[in-house]
Amino acid sequence: MTGSIRATSGRPLRVTVWNENVHETTEPAVAERYPEGIHGAIAAGIGEHLTDAHIRTATLDQPEHGLTEEVLADTDVLTWWGHAAHDRVDDEVVRRVQRHVLAGMGLLVLHSGHFSKIFTSLLGTTCTLDWRNGQDRELVWTVAPTHPIAEGVPSPIDIPEQEMYGEHFDIPTPEELVFISSFSGGEVFRSGCTFTRGYGRIFYFSPGDQEYPVYHHPDVRRVLANGVRWAAQPERERRAPQIHERPTAGWFEAGR
Amino acid sequence: MTGSIRATSGRPLRVTVWNENVHETTEPAVAERYPEGIHGAIAAGIGEHLTDAHIRTATLDQPEHGLTEEVLADTDVLTWWGHAAHDRVDDEVVRRVQRHVLAGMGLLVLHSGHFSKIFTSLLGTTCTLDWRNGQDRELVWTVAPTHPIAEGVPSPIDIPEQEMYGEHFDIPTPEELVFISSFSGGEVFRSGCTFTRGYGRIFYFSPGDQEYPVYHHPDVRRVLANGVRWAAQPERERRAPQIHERPTAGWFEAGR
Amino acid sequence: MTGSIRATSGRPLRVTVWNENVHETTEPAVAERYPEGIHGAIAAGIGEHLTDAHIRTATLDQPEHGLTEEVLADTDVLTWWGHAAHDRVDDEVVRRVQRHVLAGMGLLVLHSGHFSKIFTSLLGTTCTLDWRNGQDRELVWTVAPTHPIAEGVPSPIDIPEQEMYGEHFDIPTPEELVFISSFSGGEVFRSGCTFTRGYGRIFYFSPGDQEYPVYHHPDVRRVLANGVRWAAQPERERRAPQIHERPTAGWFEAGR
Amino acid sequence: MTGSIRATSGRPLRVTVWNENVHETTEPAVAERYPEGIHGAIAAGIGEHLTDAHIRTATLDQPEHGLTEEVLADTDVLTWWGHAAHDRVDDEVVRRVQRHVLAGMGLLVLHSGHFSKIFTSLLGTTCTLDWRNGQDRELVWTVAPTHPIAEGVPSPIDIPEQEMYGEHFDIPTPEELVFISSFSGGEVFRSGCTFTRGYGRIFYFSPGDQEYPVYHHPDVRRVLANGVRWAAQPERERRAPQIHERPTAGWFEAGR
Repeated sequence: MTGSIRATSGRPLRVTVWNENVHETTEPAVAERYPEGIHGAIAAGIGEHLTDAHIRTATLDQPEHGLTEEVLADTDVLTWWGHAAHDRVDDEVVRRVQRHVLAGMGLLVLHSGHFSKIFTSLLGTTCTLDWRNGQDRELVWTVAPTHPIAEGVPSPIDIPEQEMYGEHFDIPTPEELVFISSFSGGEVFRSGCTFTRGYGRIFYFSPGDQEYPVYHHPDVRRVLANGVRWAAQPERERRAPQIHERPTAGWFEAGR
Repeated sequence: MTGSIRATSGRPLRVTVWNENVHETTEPAVAERYPEGIHGAIAAGIGEHLTDAHIRTATLDQPEHGLTEEVLADTDVLTWWGHAAHDRVDDEVVRRVQRHVLAGMGLLVLHSGHFSKIFTSLLGTTCTLDWRNGQDRELVWTVAPTHPIAEGVPSPIDIPEQEMYGEHFDIPTPEELVFISSFSGGEVFRSGCTFTRGYGRIFYFSPGDQEYPVYHHPDVRRVLANGVRWAAQPERERRAPQIHERPTAGWFEAGR
Repeated sequence: MTGSIRATSGRPLRVTVWNENVHETTEPAVAERYPEGIHGAIAAGIGEHLTDAHIRTATLDQPEHGLTEEVLADTDVLTWWGHAAHDRVDDEVVRRVQRHVLAGMGLLVLHSGHFSKIFTSLLGTTCTLDWRNGQDRELVWTVAPTHPIAEGVPSPIDIPEQEMYGEHFDIPTPEELVFISSFSGGEVFRSGCTFTRGYGRIFYFSPGDQEYPVYHHPDVRRVLANGVRWAAQPERERRAPQIHERPTAGWFEAGR
Repeated sequence: MTGSIRATSGRPLRVTVWNENVHETTEPAVAERYPEGIHGAIAAGIGEHLTDAHIRTATLDQPEHGLTEEVLADTDVLTWWGHAAHDRVDDEVVRRVQRHVLAGMGLLVLHSGHFSKIFTSLLGTTCTLDWRNGQDRELVWTVAPTHPIAEGVPSPIDIPEQEMYGEHFDIPTPEELVFISSFSGGEVFRSGCTFTRGYGRIFYFSPGDQEYPVYHHPDVRRVLANGVRWAAQPERERRAPQIHERPTAGWFEAGR
């Protein structure tokens, strides 16, 4: 259970924390819980562990939602939080983000982001689930103890109050299942899942809600930072997969 | 190496074989190679082994491409072949097919269907690959010998002439990798892959091209029939995954 | 949620239900709970759904534990229950069972069988877990709704009283994760997992204990029968994987 | 296509390169090809990229094959090469290595090590394959381009002369399939595979043979170094998975 996360590259990681920022600006209780916004709490949590990272934030109300071509080209890992305004995210921006993920940008999709356009576009399924807002206690158990995202994380993480997210979670089978949660109501949820799409690495992590102070939880912050570290490929050239026509003479045929 | 595939349900399977049917109607050599169309050859191949199945065909030029709500609701497994006219497939029909797959309809995507709208929508990636039309010999090796789709199939299947499809194939990691192909030029390809999306089972199988008589190959036909049998869930009620709000009192809390 | 499981082969399936049969013969409360032995309850449960199957039982105290070469050669699927006497199982019998699994025999490992010699030999890990005998309620949630083992099974299965088995369960990542359980104490467990080894299919299912009447639970019985049906490969010739030296001239080199 | 591999920990990695060292000491042609032994070439290749690592070698003829408890406790990653003398490896040493892998030591199994006692014990299968010693050309294609083991590796790696290893390779489905090879004879092979067992990470890589200078190939050396880097968990405390009895009062029951 170590301290700060190891640096692995010559230059700092570049992280963009995206948030729709709707609950915080319309509901006083949420604004009090997250005075810097949910994005502010997420950025602070990541920065606690990735002390060298360059972390910026972007929100729905900015031009192009703050996700211009220039910003994405300058981002190693994008984190995504949305809930009330998924349908207000511009399709063109979604396509742009998808293009960057397929070309190698990392993506963390958080909590209610399961219903975001970017997540359902990358996964191809409905991403539905069962839920209940009833102050459940959530326990987050590690089932892949060798995974970098689980490094330094206790099993279980104990979250005193949370919205319940339960199975069946309609996603493709995760490539790696890192965490499984239980709730005091009895439900279970695959709460930490990895996927790759194109050259990009994707991590979905469900704990976190506007009505509970989950992003102030120290273990949750460690997971977010681990996820960023895992999803980042700072040395990869950003380039989408391409179709190639191979030369007429194959590898084994040159000498025929 | 058995004979006919075992029946597993009281009623016959309902299979719809879809084809854009462009090459056959515009290129005499293709029409000669596939006098009943590529769809005709695929349907015949499946019917050879699934002797009780109800097999119909549908093509691009039909109203709604022959894929109305009624047809899809009456289909256990849809097979998809397209190449020259992916962009002429109506987006509304693609969404309808995706909805049925997520609700439990089986889907076989064949050869150049890798670039179809339905495949890229379900997988979320570009589905690019490398290729060469150079009369390569293709050998299709079984790497999952316990999989139902490999039942009764020799390893390797020997296809004398084929278009080469090579890695990197930009798909999500298959849930099951059933076949890997080599080509006489030296390339390799993950040629038989399964995925699930929602309640639907998807099988991608790459051998098959308009310029080669691959769908007349007896082993290829056996794979197609095995794939249909595997993807079919005749007893499943057709219903998409839904989001559910759970009752306030959880399972473990009823007695509190 | 259908009735009996579909038959898929001309001849009946041959199932052997193995049990160490120690608790039943030494503890009156267990004998009362399982008057025909745990093996008797498992066999009855499977037979309820696989009405045509030929089901026999075998126990530790028989010569060669009832698992002679002849019995195994005549078995499509073997189920294994053990707890108190793992170390009394003869190594030679374990090697024989492993050889048959690798050659295509199906294997169901049940509950405390996680520590059996046959399971740890096939998986290569310690197969440890956390546990508590505290009359927990267990809920068994389906996370792979298209899997044949989940067919006709409610989600969750509700088991009023059970021994708790919790993560971390030290197994290789399952090829397919079918069920996840929660316990009223808060723990989670990957309770339904599939693996293939050689040509054999293996299903581990954790619900079931000598101190609780779990094998009388109708949904548990359905899972056992589904598991047998899934693991069986009645048309496969029983033959272990072999090393082969290929001919000097390769496939692509014949014409050089 | 970068230069040296990034350091990620305060202290140097500790690597032990094990070799049976039989061909080199009995066959002049092999001794000429590998004047420092196969272990010497492997150690040199790893050291080229992991310039800070502490790399030692160990061989069959040493007491306890050079793999004492002290050596293993001081090893982050062990690499294994064997071929002619698998049966001369002491069972007690194999159990010791397995115990350390399950407790978190990384393991690279190379080429003919597929038949080693340690590999078959960890995987549970026969690990058979097809082979031909016929100077095949081998092409090693990357199919998981985001995997750390593929970083900086061209696709394909072109190995002019190699022993052919072909499917069916009787291993459990790899957790990650990184490389697939083709051979000029037409065969394919899953040549780069990862597994986890307990807390340990395992990488199998097939290129490499006593009769060909494969371990002098620069791309092969890069893969070996990447594999060591990936399998190492320098900050993990070495401790095997344990069975735990949980407290009688569960997490959710404390307040009842």
